[in-house]
Amino acid sequence: MPHPTIDQCKAWQALAEHAREMCDCHLSELFAGAPGRHTAFTRQAAGLTLDLSKQRWRDETLERLLDLAREAEVPGAIRGLLAGERVNRSEDRPALHTALRLPPEASLVVEGEDLVPSVHATLERMATMVERFHAGQWRGATGRAIRDVVNLGVGGSDLGPLMVTHALADYRPEGVHRIDVHFASTMDGSQLADYLARLNPETTLFVLSSKSFTTIDTLSNARTARDWLMGRLMGVNGEEGVDAELVMRQHFIGVSASPDKMHEWGIAEDHQLEFWEWVGGRYSLWGAIGLPIALMVGMQHFRELLAGAHAMDCHFSEAPLSDNLPVLLALAGIWNVNFLDIRAHSILPYDGRLEFFAAYLEQLEMESNGKSVTHDGREVGYSTCPVLWGQLGPNAQHAFYQLLHQGTQAVECDFIAPLRRYDEVEDSATRAHLKSQHRLALANCFAQSRVLMLGDEAIDDDGPRPVHKRYRGNQPSSTLLLERMTPSTLGALIALYEHKVFVQAKIWDINPFDQWGVELGKEIAGETRRILEHQADIAGMDDSTRGLIEAVWAAERSPR
Amino acid sequence: MPHPTIDQCKAWQALAEHAREMCDCHLSELFAGAPGRHTAFTRQAAGLTLDLSKQRWRDETLERLLDLAREAEVPGAIRGLLAGERVNRSEDRPALHTALRLPPEASLVVEGEDLVPSVHATLERMATMVERFHAGQWRGATGRAIRDVVNLGVGGSDLGPLMVTHALADYRPEGVHRIDVHFASTMDGSQLADYLARLNPETTLFVLSSKSFTTIDTLSNARTARDWLMGRLMGVNGEEGVDAELVMRQHFIGVSASPDKMHEWGIAEDHQLEFWEWVGGRYSLWGAIGLPIALMVGMQHFRELLAGAHAMDCHFSEAPLSDNLPVLLALAGIWNVNFLDIRAHSILPYDGRLEFFAAYLEQLEMESNGKSVTHDGREVGYSTCPVLWGQLGPNAQHAFYQLLHQGTQAVECDFIAPLRRYDEVEDSATRAHLKSQHRLALANCFAQSRVLMLGDEAIDDDGPRPVHKRYRGNQPSSTLLLERMTPSTLGALIALYEHKVFVQAKIWDINPFDQWGVELGKEIAGETRRILEHQADIAGMDDSTRGLIEAVWAAERSPR
Repeated sequence: MPHPTIDQCKAWQALAEHAREMCDCHLSELFAGAPGRHTAFTRQAAGLTLDLSKQRWRDETLERLLDLAREAEVPGAIRGLLAGERVNRSEDRPALHTALRLPPEASLVVEGEDLVPSVHATLERMATMVERFHAGQWRGATGRAIRDVVNLGVGGSDLGPLMVTHALADYRPEGVHRIDVHFASTMDGSQLADYLARLNPETTLFVLSSKSFTTIDTLSNARTARDWLMGRLMGVNGEEGVDAELVMRQHFIGVSASPDKMHEWGIAEDHQLEFWEWVGGRYSLWGAIGLPIALMVGMQHFRELLAGAHAMDCHFSEAPLSDNLPVLLALAGIWNVNFLDIRAHSILPYDGRLEFFAAYLEQLEMESNGKSVTHDGREVGYSTCPVLWGQLGPNAQHAFYQLLHQGTQAVECDFIAPLRRYDEVEDSATRAHLKSQHRLALANCFAQSRVLMLGDEAIDDDGPRPVHKRYRGNQPSSTLLLERMTPSTLGALIALYEHKVFVQAKIWDINPFDQWGVELGKEIAGETRRILEHQADIAGMDDSTRGLIEAVWAAERSPR
Repeated sequence: MPHPTIDQCKAWQALAEHAREMCDCHLSELFAGAPGRHTAFTRQAAGLTLDLSKQRWRDETLERLLDLAREAEVPGAIRGLLAGERVNRSEDRPALHTALRLPPEASLVVEGEDLVPSVHATLERMATMVERFHAGQWRGATGRAIRDVVNLGVGGSDLGPLMVTHALADYRPEGVHRIDVHFASTMDGSQLADYLARLNPETTLFVLSSKSFTTIDTLSNARTARDWLMGRLMGVNGEEGVDAELVMRQHFIGVSASPDKMHEWGIAEDHQLEFWEWVGGRYSLWGAIGLPIALMVGMQHFRELLAGAHAMDCHFSEAPLSDNLPVLLALAGIWNVNFLDIRAHSILPYDGRLEFFAAYLEQLEMESNGKSVTHDGREVGYSTCPVLWGQLGPNAQHAFYQLLHQGTQAVECDFIAPLRRYDEVEDSATRAHLKSQHRLALANCFAQSRVLMLGDEAIDDDGPRPVHKRYRGNQPSSTLLLERMTPSTLGALIALYEHKVFVQAKIWDINPFDQWGVELGKEIAGETRRILEHQADIAGMDDSTRGLIEAVWAAERSPR
């Protein structure tokens, strides 16, 4: 007999019943009756403060959610994850992104092998490379020092490094040869074409990042980049130009779990950085995929990023469930999506440096937990991952907050902000000015979560207002404060969400580490491309696809 | 007695009943039974082709939705909108963005005044400015020609120009002095600080865009920009430096509906561009707010953008409901959100040039229709605007398509792609190469909507697969094809969505042109800021806000 699904368990049933009482309870009532509510629902770890008091829950709710976590065996799952058990069951391997941030003195023996030495060997290889760039000693085929690095990668090989380099742009090391880092991901060549139009091929290097090294998006950009380099450089030094092999050698670095495929493509062996099958793409910024980060901020800051994530790993491993930030954040999400039927989740950072954080989380959360089959192959009878999206909070205030305040959709929000900023600005007038802009951002952050919670009650009654100026409130939110945004607190922030996703997956009994849902699309895209190129028969297509393909053919035949 | 709400109307009731039959019907069945389905559900206008065959509907569904549109008096509303009636009832004014794109020979008399001459007078003033920039004749305070223009604006004064300049980057005019256009919007100063670090104050001009000219986000960036210019330029020509008045005059343009406030801020009178109260912020890219677009692509292309939008306006005005693209797109949305309970909508362009299109639509749709009160002040009893988000399709394939294919949330998708691309690339090898990348993007676009529709049935049965490799399909989508992406088809595309939003608002009986839901937040933010700065009393705050503010104070007191 199969074990009961999670929604058949006692804790789930209790929560469902409790939710029936809670669903008519307005957030403002929860606050009215509880003077110490902020303290009661706020926890700290690794430089982060998480205020969950604006969730639509009570002490009792949280107690029952913690029961659910225990019934779902979350504590054992955390131990298993960190110990390297084969938690990625459909692919029968561990998910060991946490191993990438273990300190050198640690040891983690998985299936007979201590992984820490090889992790640090890769970090050392990265360090050597970064040092060469920062010393101005990595030279292009014509002898000039590399100045621009373009990362060619997509998904996990793009979003993590892109997000972090943007967030840590203030942390460039001083006194080194400056490297500018760029990102091109889209398969249609748009972004790459922009860079090629303005970069100098003599001083530009490409990092090809792809776990499988078969990602067609990345490989087609890589081919375009190679042709561009060859076309421009092979005529530079006189008629003969430079040697093609030298161009390949000096202008490409490969990062992949497949050394064979890198070799095939022509990446020089000592310019390959390898990582492991047990690192999922969307969890991979902590190792070789993070090379663009290290090129931008230096290895010292990169190691601080790892240390911050490791601090969160330790907290995740050691803190009791009721004080455990990833667990609590996960439970808030479970409560919203499974018991209050809130199917959308908005990520709202109040710091321009986190511009790409929402896009990063969209992958982390929706690719990990956009699943509907349990480990033992049953369709789930409950919601899993909500739709998650976001934007810088201050900008979203002028874009979609209208819907949050007065629309008909229930949405959970995460507000994220650093407590302090701009301390390092030298000129005192400019510093005061920028600190005032930061304070303005904080004031908006706190004000918005307050209005979302209280609605009209956020202001003293100033007489009756027309209905279209009223606010219902009662939209739940979490507020996440970083002491300051440093490599370390950013590392902790990312790790917090990684673990939150893991805890939710455990409760939903789904596998957050595979992504079978993207495979069929790739297959059909290949077939569709062959049809578009008249190399395969259109007859098997559905009527719509046939119509769309014929429209392309008609457009191709028409005069320009 | 109040008139019945829309969900009490006959057509709505009929649709509700019909939905009960349809909800068990899989998209693959709808295709299996209907060989001409693509043709039956595809319409064209203004260079766009809209394929609605992958919506979960039948002929009969559409008939009933058209009944609903008629019962909601959509045809009369379209006439009223275009004629300048006061459709923005809560603010008692018309919404006349369509007037901004009328050709010069047209006439539109609204409340006794023909608007066309003043619209074209503004376009002429823009043209004169653009010409001066493109001739290298707009000089900074030190006499050097302006080279970089930074748009300071947020929301409607940012997203539209940002999206369009990015989309039309291929359309820079040749043989003119090059102007690079940049955008800084976030109130915390992050983006602006980046630009200030790398731009030359002598050759940089700022466009201050704000309908009210009171937007604190924009004004705080503007103040930082002014201080930067003054600090740098007033010492450039000898000890005395240049004149402060000259800096103000040569380095700032203002775009606003409030000339008084522009004057107060110090914008020279002949460098003010004014627009009208009857242009909503999120509908304003078609006039003076579009200055950055015109600076980038030239007035000729800007006028083509207007002409494309006008072509869609004519179609919207003249086409019967059953052939009317905005009406059909709106009805598909209504069907999904109100009858199939699909509360999320994803925008997925397969063209890197449309990188900011989803962010643009997030504002257009959610700020317009994130409402829940009817014109006569009743709470709606049905869903209005769904949560809308998106990403470049090829990138989203590596990010959140997993959730679309195998998650538990129902999502409607809009696939958008140009049929032809890269025709203008001169080098034939590069052209072939890039055309192949474009074909790859198209193949992926068509393949994804096919898999979302059919699920496992998209491939020939290759034997049983484990459950975690199965695809349910049945996610509805629309596919929108542009002949090519030109200023004209882009204009039509934007206007299509503008009108779609209007039709939905009419059916939901809400006002898409106000945004009262953002006002209270501004008020509370001001109060919160005063508290943060110890200028107001914290006692009235809720427990959470108090805790958060105290955390800021504690951080400010702590040593660095």
